[in-house]
Amino acid sequence: MSRASSRPVRIGRYESGTWQATGDEIAAEEPLQLLLDGEPLSVIMRTPGNDIELALGLLHAERVITSLDDVASLRISAETHESEEKIAVRAELLESNAVDVHLRDSAARRPRRSFLSSSACGVCGATTLDDLAHDHAPLGRGPIVDATTLPPLADRLREQQRLFERTGGLHAAGLFTPAGELVTLREDIGRHNAVDKVVGRGVLDRTVPIASAILAVSGRAGYEVVQKAVAAGIPILVAVGAPSTLAVATAVRFGLTLVGFMRGERFNVYSAPERVRGARLD
Amino acid sequence: MSRASSRPVRIGRYESGTWQATGDEIAAEEPLQLLLDGEPLSVIMRTPGNDIELALGLLHAERVITSLDDVASLRISAETHESEEKIAVRAELLESNAVDVHLRDSAARRPRRSFLSSSACGVCGATTLDDLAHDHAPLGRGPIVDATTLPPLADRLREQQRLFERTGGLHAAGLFTPAGELVTLREDIGRHNAVDKVVGRGVLDRTVPIASAILAVSGRAGYEVVQKAVAAGIPILVAVGAPSTLAVATAVRFGLTLVGFMRGERFNVYSAPERVRGARLD
Repeated sequence: MSRASSRPVRIGRYESGTWQATGDEIAAEEPLQLLLDGEPLSVIMRTPGNDIELALGLLHAERVITSLDDVASLRISAETHESEEKIAVRAELLESNAVDVHLRDSAARRPRRSFLSSSACGVCGATTLDDLAHDHAPLGRGPIVDATTLPPLADRLREQQRLFERTGGLHAAGLFTPAGELVTLREDIGRHNAVDKVVGRGVLDRTVPIASAILAVSGRAGYEVVQKAVAAGIPILVAVGAPSTLAVATAVRFGLTLVGFMRGERFNVYSAPERVRGARLD
Repeated sequence: MSRASSRPVRIGRYESGTWQATGDEIAAEEPLQLLLDGEPLSVIMRTPGNDIELALGLLHAERVITSLDDVASLRISAETHESEEKIAVRAELLESNAVDVHLRDSAARRPRRSFLSSSACGVCGATTLDDLAHDHAPLGRGPIVDATTLPPLADRLREQQRLFERTGGLHAAGLFTPAGELVTLREDIGRHNAVDKVVGRGVLDRTVPIASAILAVSGRAGYEVVQKAVAAGIPILVAVGAPSTLAVATAVRFGLTLVGFMRGERFNVYSAPERVRGARLD
């Protein structure tokens, strides 16, 4: 809802055999630390903006609060885009990307689940931002692939998705060789689950880390899918949809080649372009 | 990857003013209980099938295991679609929709996060299936809307999404009056976050439960979005994409009118058709 919701990035854009290094805008994804009565409760991957609404809506859905009357005060980070007039509760500034909700005694005594967690696996169980600092092994050099290898992967995902035409409700993750041959395809309502299934197949087959392969996913690439690819040692991740800022930042940090916006003969490279012949970001 | 991945449902199909009661297939979403050494660890919303791969892939991503050598044995539910030959570890039958991973001592001693959680908010913090049994207030009768009110909502979501054209990476949730006027629109990389923000706005405005409104979301409708709509008291949920089986089951249980597959002048009604004039499922 504001410019905080997107960020500029440098990309390598491929279209029908031609490369262009250019700028683009991608959706912002940043962790929000949610505190309850000053204690870390959960980390939520979200697009910045309306953070108080997010915190209150989540606490309401999880039945920690039933109305604003259960909230004694709020402490918010400076980035939040709420107008204080509309909050109607006392709000103080807090460190970056955090919301602290203090409950009235009546609400604090209400039974509730022992913890909340986050919206996406890969953030599983994280209650503080430090919990996200996974210490993965750096990715190896990995394969170098031809740009022409990549566009057909999206079609192959769809062709192989026996169910997609019937339900329209499943995501797919496919593991491919550097030449574009399908190794494993898994489907799930959750994109991250489909990735877990592909990697779990590798665990069973003792092929993890999967150092010479391309992982392709339907839909978008968020932090959790990039994190899972890195954890599995997969050097190239191709998403049919758009990546998020944190997906790109994580890909850059671990040297993952992140490809997105695969449409027909077009795609974008967001990081580690050296694994795609001809790609450059600037 | 098998017929377990989809389920038949009865729907009311609307197209350009005409209603048809018919059958359809929707993507299966069911909770999987993940146990570690016999202890409940997490509930994962997933499409059944390849459950061992899912469990091992998730445990690998979360660094609980680094290879199959860390796994002493597995207990699996009868529904799992693995062939035991390919598992290469001892597997026993377990109750429905569960996987129990027993670690070797070496792995069990490895430091790890204190817990894992699930893939979607609405399942936050659930470690057993019982944790999912939310005790929501039943939805009130709510408004009755004209079928012609619904198709424009998808366009209005898109029109209002200032950022969508720039990033292609954001989901939207919009709260509308029964006449189709926009009340609140929020965007986020997470669909459930966008819904939390809309409901959080209602908490701030003291309009929750939101008893006379339509919630429209981009993308698909899974369990977590339906659960959040029910928790907020919203009687009609419209998704641009497909619903899951658990979304429909939850909508039926609480009397939520669930509308999906909104494309042009078409949509499907999956539950509580009495709130949409002319709709029937059989």
